[in-house]
Amino acid sequence: MLIQEMTKQESLDLLARTRLCRLGCVQGNQPYVVPFYFAYQNNSLYGASTVGQKIDWMRKNPLVCVEVDEVESPQKWISAVVFGRYEELPDTPEYHRERAVAHNVLQKQRMWWEPGYVKTILHGTERPLVPVFYRISIGHITGHRATP
Amino acid sequence: MLIQEMTKQESLDLLARTRLCRLGCVQGNQPYVVPFYFAYQNNSLYGASTVGQKIDWMRKNPLVCVEVDEVESPQKWISAVVFGRYEELPDTPEYHRERAVAHNVLQKQRMWWEPGYVKTILHGTERPLVPVFYRISIGHITGHRATP
Repeated sequence: MLIQEMTKQESLDLLARTRLCRLGCVQGNQPYVVPFYFAYQNNSLYGASTVGQKIDWMRKNPLVCVEVDEVESPQKWISAVVFGRYEELPDTPEYHRERAVAHNVLQKQRMWWEPGYVKTILHGTERPLVPVFYRISIGHITGHRATP
Repeated sequence: MLIQEMTKQESLDLLARTRLCRLGCVQGNQPYVVPFYFAYQNNSLYGASTVGQKIDWMRKNPLVCVEVDEVESPQKWISAVVFGRYEELPDTPEYHRERAVAHNVLQKQRMWWEPGYVKTILHGTERPLVPVFYRISIGHITGHRATP
């Protein structure tokens, strides 16, 4: 097996054609990783979630990591890793334009669903259905390719 | 879409039938997420890697997160998240038995490849092919299920 670096453009191409990533965030020394559907546009990843542990943690520490990959086997895969920064897009006049961009790109890539349709039951009680829009701006991206 | 908690046993079952996970580790406030093949046995995940950023970071901060999932669509998925602790299994008499367990479980689950066959070229130079065996002991596991 040979592991080599991908170019920045190859890594961005992988990001652009991917919808499902794994998002890492941190509280204290503890990492937390969750699957996350996103839409890529203009050096940013856009997403929408209900409030929960992931949003709580990213509000406190905006440094995140996004990993995308195409895995065929342990010996044949490509993977790109983004070091980025979480930025919330609240429903205020200041963020009106960016929220519209997020809504548009998520809808265009069929990543949109009405938040009203999401019902989260945790510990036997429903969780508030507050939709949060956010952007992850890409600070640094690297990629690797493994071939048998 | 309805999101509900899975039982601990359902989460462990998902972990036991999964080979590919995403592993999160931390340096400072910065998370890092990589795909990672593992083998599960007795409340532990076993893995083998060449030395690199992931191993460097886990040696300094052993708190890790392992995420496994089965995703059919944005509205239909299951996911389990492990908060665990990295423990290296060095080639010393003290760790002889645990290394044998790791080697055996990785081989049994066909996750094994000869480290000598892995050749990593980064920044134009080959990286040392030191195989590192390790165990991630499960501290806490949770799981969620989304249904349309």
